[in-house]
Amino acid sequence: MMPKFNFSVMLITPLSLTMNMNFCVICGHKTTEKIPLGDHQLRRVCTDCGNIHYINPKVICGALVIWENKVLMCRRAIEPRYGLWTLPAGYMELFETMEQGAARETREEAEAEVEIEQLYCMYNIPRIGQIYVLFKANLVDGQFGSGEETIESRLFSEDEIPWSELAFPSVERTLRHYFEDRKTNQFDMHLETLGSRLDHTG
Amino acid sequence: MMPKFNFSVMLITPLSLTMNMNFCVICGHKTTEKIPLGDHQLRRVCTDCGNIHYINPKVICGALVIWENKVLMCRRAIEPRYGLWTLPAGYMELFETMEQGAARETREEAEAEVEIEQLYCMYNIPRIGQIYVLFKANLVDGQFGSGEETIESRLFSEDEIPWSELAFPSVERTLRHYFEDRKTNQFDMHLETLGSRLDHTG
Repeated sequence: MMPKFNFSVMLITPLSLTMNMNFCVICGHKTTEKIPLGDHQLRRVCTDCGNIHYINPKVICGALVIWENKVLMCRRAIEPRYGLWTLPAGYMELFETMEQGAARETREEAEAEVEIEQLYCMYNIPRIGQIYVLFKANLVDGQFGSGEETIESRLFSEDEIPWSELAFPSVERTLRHYFEDRKTNQFDMHLETLGSRLDHTG
Repeated sequence: MMPKFNFSVMLITPLSLTMNMNFCVICGHKTTEKIPLGDHQLRRVCTDCGNIHYINPKVICGALVIWENKVLMCRRAIEPRYGLWTLPAGYMELFETMEQGAARETREEAEAEVEIEQLYCMYNIPRIGQIYVLFKANLVDGQFGSGEETIESRLFSEDEIPWSELAFPSVERTLRHYFEDRKTNQFDMHLETLGSRLDHTG
């Protein structure tokens, strides 16, 4: 049975990351695919002004937010993975730091103010050209809510985690690391490569 | 006195990161600046097909390469900072991991094969929309050379480091951390925010 959200998820393929740059953003003329002088990779290059259109990996910043030994999670009100549980995270914006990005995403998705404690998990997801940068953080005052992209937010203790309803492998990996590390109270940074899922969402 | 390379450096300004996306990469029609529905920031949006042109921070991967207690550095054959010394580093490519990016850049700039040891330094440089991800690595066989972007490569012991001829603040910070951490042989990951230089190169 195909879950309802599968079609939109399938659009996030490696191919879609590199296609469709048919016109130059600077002058509007057509682009063509070639390896620029001194480069080693095919790029979309403007046939008129020569502008090279690089496509770079994107950074996703997020937070593992703790309050009274519970983890803050958000149930997604958007595709992909509508209805599943995630940690507050999203694309890093220009001119912000990774820590600011993680705090902003938590504010937007969980209406919560956090104090960033440390860099905790980083994931390469090369198939979809993303890196995840997740910080361990604490709720400032225990308050949280549900932003526009969130159906509901909730604090989960370890035995309440909805393991079968997590939105992304990065969420599961981070939770597993946290509950394991908590046994020794030693939270070293974890760097891993993810991304063998067939639907390419890491 | 204006150094010869200053003009090209000045082109790398925050403004230049957000300007000039006048045409849609998908359909070639004009873009306009507006805040898309559900968004909080101004974006360049196509007036015809509605495509939103996000501009995201870029990831620079690099390596602090060690061989017999010396550090491998490259003298830049390109702008900005032509003639100054740097660590092998460059823009992360789509579909590679950060570790692969660091190893690839070392291969391209210093013609050296490395074994990545650990994530060592990360820098936010928000003014220019970049994050640096630097790994501690070892030369595999002691061999190195000079790639197309490099005038010469060299192994430096601590007392040979050309402190007044380093290309970027991130290079100096990383070297200072390394020689400090070496005293205790404890190489914890450093995460910092840089970027108060007037020429915006971090």
